[in-house]
Amino acid sequence: MTKPRIGILGTGDVGQSLGKGFCDQGHEVRMGTRDPAGDKVRAWVAANGPRASAGTFAEAAEFAEVAVVATLWSGTESALRLAGPERLAGKVVIDATNPLAFVPNAPPGLAVGHTDSAGEQVQRWLPAARVVKAFNTVGAPHMVHPRFPGGPPDMFICGDDDDAKRVVTELCVAFGWQVIDVGGIAGARLLEPLCLVWLQYGIRSGSWNHAFKMLHR
Amino acid sequence: MTKPRIGILGTGDVGQSLGKGFCDQGHEVRMGTRDPAGDKVRAWVAANGPRASAGTFAEAAEFAEVAVVATLWSGTESALRLAGPERLAGKVVIDATNPLAFVPNAPPGLAVGHTDSAGEQVQRWLPAARVVKAFNTVGAPHMVHPRFPGGPPDMFICGDDDDAKRVVTELCVAFGWQVIDVGGIAGARLLEPLCLVWLQYGIRSGSWNHAFKMLHR
Repeated sequence: MTKPRIGILGTGDVGQSLGKGFCDQGHEVRMGTRDPAGDKVRAWVAANGPRASAGTFAEAAEFAEVAVVATLWSGTESALRLAGPERLAGKVVIDATNPLAFVPNAPPGLAVGHTDSAGEQVQRWLPAARVVKAFNTVGAPHMVHPRFPGGPPDMFICGDDDDAKRVVTELCVAFGWQVIDVGGIAGARLLEPLCLVWLQYGIRSGSWNHAFKMLHR
Repeated sequence: MTKPRIGILGTGDVGQSLGKGFCDQGHEVRMGTRDPAGDKVRAWVAANGPRASAGTFAEAAEFAEVAVVATLWSGTESALRLAGPERLAGKVVIDATNPLAFVPNAPPGLAVGHTDSAGEQVQRWLPAARVVKAFNTVGAPHMVHPRFPGGPPDMFICGDDDDAKRVVTELCVAFGWQVIDVGGIAGARLLEPLCLVWLQYGIRSGSWNHAFKMLHR
């Protein structure tokens, strides 16, 4: 596989971690943000060498051969509208979001679930894109080259387009993951609750250095 | 811990596997069934020695210090009604069910989810029992002494009563599991989708010898 150009929508921990990982792998990466002149994204570009750049959501989407949605759930719809669904048509779009619903004095829940999911909603917002859910069941510091005793851990993915899942699988493998495909994009109904299992483990253990693996024989 | 008497509601693969495991550990086990004179349960009793017995759902519930709900989801409400919620009041009840919804030409889904779960429904059907969700994220052949390269795997549990979770944790550890507690019984909203991840892996790999582990450092 030649190294596809990566457009990342969202400059939070997930976007920065994946963006650095893709730069280090030799991909050109453009970070998309509401504020391309902001200090945070300028620092990220400065730190990540000549393959790193920043622009608007629309510029990152236009640049992308593979796009990553790495926004907070509450900002996802507007980010995708600003990116422009037409700029992502036909492209592989990795949905790394989790539709977390924060309520006072309780652990986070999911804003959607059971008969719908963020993955399916992202696919509806980008009807001509080939959306693959991935990178939503582990924390940002461990998304690239995850190192755990007993590893490598497993990245769970799903999506309706098998070719897009092959592309995402290769990207995950290059980052050091094994990949488990749980089916069509409706599998996000399973993978988004899995994020909360990961989150509960962190809340209850007080540690965030953990990742899932499927043992098998 | 002295070895609590175990009552198992349901004589399918899950009930038989856990029942054998508890007998082998030195527990007295009574299997509850609609048909205590049936061939299947009589064969199970004959195969499992002097600590094994069978009776009605009510007799198994009465006998139990710790009960296991191991029914098909479609039969769970009636089994618990026959068992009698008053006979399980105050007792630890392990809910091993999964609310699978079977639809033609598609993988199984969940009959309840997101804002409810089978675990919560079982707790409502048994309001005075101390329900702990467990044994719902692995297949019957691997519930007792799971042996996998890189193991032991992790048993995910949840429930509202911390003391009941301690009891279930000891039982799981005796079976060779590590245990991850994901919180109150509403955590079943997360652990029941996890069953479908396990199921999807089986459907897509054609193999059923797998179990989850949380890698950590």
